[in-house]
Amino acid sequence: MEQENNESHGDEAHDIESDSVVYLKENDSLCRPLLVKRTNTTSQIAIIGANTCPIESLDYEIVENELFKQDWRSRKKLQIYQYILLKWAFALLIGLGTGLVGFFNNIAVENIAGFKLLLTTDLMLKHKYFKAFAAYAGCNVVLAAAAAALCAFIAPAAAGSGIPEVKAYLNGVDAHSILAPSTLFVKIFGSVLGVSAGFVVGKEGPMVHTGACLASLLGQGGSRKYHLTWKWLRYFKNDRDRRDLITCGAAAGVAAAFRAPVGGVLFALEEAASWWRSALLWRTFFTTAVVAIVLRAFIQLCATGVCGLFGEGGLIMYDVSSAKVLYNGPDILAATLLGIIGGIFGSLYNYLVDKVVRNYSIINERGPAFKILLVVAISLLTSCCSYGLPWLATCIPCPTDQSTSCPNTDVSGNYKSFQCPSGYYNDLASLFLNTNDDAIRNLVSTNTEKEFHISSLLIFFAAVYCLGIITYGIAIPSGLFIPVILAGACYGRLVGRLFASISKLDVGLYALLGAASLLGGTMRMTVSLCVILLELTNDLLLLPLVMLVLLISKSVADCFNKGVYDQIVKIKGLPYMEAHAEPYMRQLVALDAVTGPLVTFSGVEKVRNILHALRTTGHNGFPVIDEPPFSDAPELCGLVLRSHLLVLLKGKVFSRHRVLAGDEILNKFAVFDFAKAGSGKGIKLEDIDIEEEEMDMYVDLHPIVNTSPYTVVETMSLAKAAILFRQLGLRHMCVVPKSQGRPPIVGILTRHDFMPEHILGLYPHVKHHK
Amino acid sequence: MEQENNESHGDEAHDIESDSVVYLKENDSLCRPLLVKRTNTTSQIAIIGANTCPIESLDYEIVENELFKQDWRSRKKLQIYQYILLKWAFALLIGLGTGLVGFFNNIAVENIAGFKLLLTTDLMLKHKYFKAFAAYAGCNVVLAAAAAALCAFIAPAAAGSGIPEVKAYLNGVDAHSILAPSTLFVKIFGSVLGVSAGFVVGKEGPMVHTGACLASLLGQGGSRKYHLTWKWLRYFKNDRDRRDLITCGAAAGVAAAFRAPVGGVLFALEEAASWWRSALLWRTFFTTAVVAIVLRAFIQLCATGVCGLFGEGGLIMYDVSSAKVLYNGPDILAATLLGIIGGIFGSLYNYLVDKVVRNYSIINERGPAFKILLVVAISLLTSCCSYGLPWLATCIPCPTDQSTSCPNTDVSGNYKSFQCPSGYYNDLASLFLNTNDDAIRNLVSTNTEKEFHISSLLIFFAAVYCLGIITYGIAIPSGLFIPVILAGACYGRLVGRLFASISKLDVGLYALLGAASLLGGTMRMTVSLCVILLELTNDLLLLPLVMLVLLISKSVADCFNKGVYDQIVKIKGLPYMEAHAEPYMRQLVALDAVTGPLVTFSGVEKVRNILHALRTTGHNGFPVIDEPPFSDAPELCGLVLRSHLLVLLKGKVFSRHRVLAGDEILNKFAVFDFAKAGSGKGIKLEDIDIEEEEMDMYVDLHPIVNTSPYTVVETMSLAKAAILFRQLGLRHMCVVPKSQGRPPIVGILTRHDFMPEHILGLYPHVKHHK
Repeated sequence: MEQENNESHGDEAHDIESDSVVYLKENDSLCRPLLVKRTNTTSQIAIIGANTCPIESLDYEIVENELFKQDWRSRKKLQIYQYILLKWAFALLIGLGTGLVGFFNNIAVENIAGFKLLLTTDLMLKHKYFKAFAAYAGCNVVLAAAAAALCAFIAPAAAGSGIPEVKAYLNGVDAHSILAPSTLFVKIFGSVLGVSAGFVVGKEGPMVHTGACLASLLGQGGSRKYHLTWKWLRYFKNDRDRRDLITCGAAAGVAAAFRAPVGGVLFALEEAASWWRSALLWRTFFTTAVVAIVLRAFIQLCATGVCGLFGEGGLIMYDVSSAKVLYNGPDILAATLLGIIGGIFGSLYNYLVDKVVRNYSIINERGPAFKILLVVAISLLTSCCSYGLPWLATCIPCPTDQSTSCPNTDVSGNYKSFQCPSGYYNDLASLFLNTNDDAIRNLVSTNTEKEFHISSLLIFFAAVYCLGIITYGIAIPSGLFIPVILAGACYGRLVGRLFASISKLDVGLYALLGAASLLGGTMRMTVSLCVILLELTNDLLLLPLVMLVLLISKSVADCFNKGVYDQIVKIKGLPYMEAHAEPYMRQLVALDAVTGPLVTFSGVEKVRNILHALRTTGHNGFPVIDEPPFSDAPELCGLVLRSHLLVLLKGKVFSRHRVLAGDEILNKFAVFDFAKAGSGKGIKLEDIDIEEEEMDMYVDLHPIVNTSPYTVVETMSLAKAAILFRQLGLRHMCVVPKSQGRPPIVGILTRHDFMPEHILGLYPHVKHHK
Repeated sequence: MEQENNESHGDEAHDIESDSVVYLKENDSLCRPLLVKRTNTTSQIAIIGANTCPIESLDYEIVENELFKQDWRSRKKLQIYQYILLKWAFALLIGLGTGLVGFFNNIAVENIAGFKLLLTTDLMLKHKYFKAFAAYAGCNVVLAAAAAALCAFIAPAAAGSGIPEVKAYLNGVDAHSILAPSTLFVKIFGSVLGVSAGFVVGKEGPMVHTGACLASLLGQGGSRKYHLTWKWLRYFKNDRDRRDLITCGAAAGVAAAFRAPVGGVLFALEEAASWWRSALLWRTFFTTAVVAIVLRAFIQLCATGVCGLFGEGGLIMYDVSSAKVLYNGPDILAATLLGIIGGIFGSLYNYLVDKVVRNYSIINERGPAFKILLVVAISLLTSCCSYGLPWLATCIPCPTDQSTSCPNTDVSGNYKSFQCPSGYYNDLASLFLNTNDDAIRNLVSTNTEKEFHISSLLIFFAAVYCLGIITYGIAIPSGLFIPVILAGACYGRLVGRLFASISKLDVGLYALLGAASLLGGTMRMTVSLCVILLELTNDLLLLPLVMLVLLISKSVADCFNKGVYDQIVKIKGLPYMEAHAEPYMRQLVALDAVTGPLVTFSGVEKVRNILHALRTTGHNGFPVIDEPPFSDAPELCGLVLRSHLLVLLKGKVFSRHRVLAGDEILNKFAVFDFAKAGSGKGIKLEDIDIEEEEMDMYVDLHPIVNTSPYTVVETMSLAKAAILFRQLGLRHMCVVPKSQGRPPIVGILTRHDFMPEHILGLYPHVKHHK
């Protein structure tokens, strides 16, 4: 798709007063979102370039044109069964693939990080403290630099969590190469390297993105470049089916990351997806069931010892079911307190992440070298914290009544000796010099009330909270769940210690409640978090308290700002359509939002006109108007898509005179010739080679016109139009006149036209009116 | 609303070839669904009258008329906060109310049924077997007759599960008195009586209905009859907000019945609701959290012994977490087998329930006496089975290694002595002469492998499966979950016994898998069943197997028929809109579905014309057309609702001449005067008293016209129009002409017009075309 016409819209950026997001409109199809940063003193505009990749809307509408109808009538029962079977086969493949990747990720991280930690511990035991630090920090920097290099040079889109991008895709926004094979590759290996490098990042966001990428690959209909195309994949060459696959992929990602199949389905439903049908619930459920079965099989395999340092493990990652759940008044009070703390710290977290990401974008913008440098710097800082802070802790004598070895010698474990003499352990080292998963496991471990000093918990909380914030935004795949769970569990345990005298609940369960509260405060999910935590910890009896904590923390945090993923979507400039209409939209009508000139075609149009329109505009849909002699009066025939026009022009079914040539086109083309290729593929305008003499010939557009575009009357309230647009997942909405005797269409509304920035730009007064 | 014009539609019934559902259309608003039964030999049409109550569609659209806009502009921030606060307060109240009712139900059932069982056991111990049967059957019949009398005389709508009705309501169908206070009353007490009477019925369907009724009561805006109206409830006097409340109520019902808060949310999402927003997820979550907290508080209270026979209990109803979950190849094979069995038995169950309900309807139709007689007959049959069949079982010696007393003396318990000598127990009696809850608890009890003979399990399965089928449809509140869980757990345990030699899994867990399989086979839910079972049994490690079983049983059963609730919705003749369009709709356009004459008004209309239209049609929405001099050419001004017209006419703001009188109306009325009263309330046509001289005066409709009705062009594919209608939850959809020079509206589509029966009645060929 072209990117002309940018200049003409340049002024729009000048209307913006301060630091904000602008969706520069390239007519109706391509948005070029820019983060415009303007300081008060200068008028310099910093365009944060990570976001200037072209963005395209997705077409979820079924194009009911002549070709489609012809095909529909001739479609056989067998083909329909084949299609349904394929859907399930794809769901199976997504489940298998994501399960495998999830498992590979686990094993790789445990082995790489384990090797690094063993090396460090060995040197520590020999009292070679500087060498130990050098080894530790060196490993971290190498791993971090490798991850950053992958990201910077191969797939910049793989940086970050990936959940916001998947969320935006499922809302109908296709950012460039967000689901490309290269992104998939970098996401898998970058995530392993990044987590192994000891960063305060998780693997669940990247897993969601990985699942979505896998699903998208399947939905591409093979690769023409590598001669891998299958005829029977053609049914999936549309955005509708791809959306379904990617929803399954997102669910599979969470299921694989947390070994939480039901939580995965709910995550896809609550956070990721914008459209949902019961059939989809059913299919995502199947996908996550496959993931669960794959994971269980491999974990059973690992029990035989073939997975190296991965060890035995089980389906439950942080099992707390051994703790007795007994709670009373004071515990409910403590839970309420945790909810409030979670809400405050959560919204603060979001606020700070927002600031940090915006500033990092400016650094990352300068080129791959800067990206890698930033990553290395953060890596060094993290290493210093992890290795340096444990020195602040005093050595604690090992508990005598414990059955576990202390100080323990294996990689993961509760009691790290660090610099302490035999029979003592360093509690901060048990948290810092472990993988994040093990640190969480230690924090939520039950029946270990006095394991951590209050001061150690305070130090760890402060370190992890800050490191989590400054790590997000650097050029590595980085999930947000684990940092949040770490910080939350830490203050949860802290509160548990404070309430220890009047509370019956185990501090491990307090840690779990703390994690829930901070998750609620940042992510703002409810049911899915509840189920994910349930599946992570296998403690159903705590459910009422977890629900209470989530409710309070979300309510508190919602007073301050939006959820972290929504914020990142906004920072990335992705034009996300909210499910509800903004109140001020009720004061406007559909026509108010229509801007720019309308380009229409006749039912039988001159090739020159079409080419001219395609070249000079970025529009993706053109209304087609039937005029005499093809109708009594001008009337709206329907809407034709740019991609379909390109295919038709390439086929060159032209005629010298202005006549209907539908049958010829219907014979020459099949509906699948117009199937939508994967993002970035498909015929481009440059691929079309029209001779000069063909320019004045005519082409009959009727067979490819979608005769059932969704229309609204110009006087329809803009709020209602927005809801229609969002609920049906439209890309174009035709605005038709109310009164007669005017042209049959007065404009087209697209995603961009419903963006608050656009509408408030046109009508700055409406917001204050309320 | 009136019910005239039935005669004119009488012919429609004659078009139907065989036993099927007809939605008789009373113009656009009132459907009078009839179950038409026609035998092949005679042409007699049996109209099954339980379904002839008037049905009305619900208005979810925001009516954006002048009055609304005026109010919107003047709405203050405070009012908006008040509204939001009220929403949460209502959610809280629904949670509290449903939790209380759920708890009351539990205590009442345990005490009534417990008393009955104690009486019987006492007599048994004295070897007075006939007296024992008389006491048992007598208690049952009295309780059953009381439940039936409540149903038959006070609220016939309270019979059955209630879930189908709630589902239909949330789809936009308001059946008469389905959520009335009398229904609530009968549902609560009828359910207690019915379950206590020993029927093979559950309380969860009735609990869902109870939650919905409670929610609906709150959404009525008080009762004018009892002088209980609050001004601040006026915001909720619309179907939109009522729908949200009732969704919360349905979720709370499941949460209370199964003590499964997350399962409740998911049930509401997956099975009950037709529209869903993330805000609603959040609110239902809050409601079910309240239910969980209420239940937990009361259960803790009962631990002190104040609840009579209710005993201690916990939040987990059927705890199996003590069993070790270890499974391998053979277990997976067994699970697959269970899935297949569940699918077959489940679809057979649905098929038989369908047949039974249709036949019962004919009996129930004859009057309350017949209803009660039927209930008494089934009650006697159930008593005979429960008391008679245990005689077939041989006495089993008590296990020696058990810590539980055997035979046990308390009401519930694993080992009933029945006729057996001391030291022996009767395993069938342990299942039959218990409450259903206790029978399930016995079936899923772990570490009790040999407790039940295979022959006993076979007998119990056959009895419960058949009794469950013949009990649904009689005039008592009857849930379907418990019968299905009972039968499923029974054959699950049976399969477990058969696989005992090669399997590692406990037979109690097999019983759980069996219950899952039959639930999947009848209800066809996935995620919600999974979570409900998880919350019922507290066994997370079994989750992958439960998912597998559910997937298989649903897939198998879907080959044969639809889910049981969908079937009942259909039997009841409720015009349920499916989420997807039928394939044949793609061959038709919107205009094809338009039938009947269109009644339109002018912007300023004569009172006589309006009254005439209101009297002679059942339409609920009338297009208003502006004509010269108020516009240059006739154009669609919008849509006006019958209820709004009635309010306007009652206010008598008439003028002698055809002039605009908008300001006068805006001054006289507030938007809340037009708020929609609860079902069955509001101004009726008979309430309006217009003098003859006023008949020829004019009334200005502009202030109450919804100027933003959703419109489709007549050539829009019917499939797309159906999806638009369904997704946005419309009641009326205006069909506008494509070409100019014709009247500005060509018809109105309503729910009825999208019903397959209606479309296939008009175009019988389209279905076969495919």
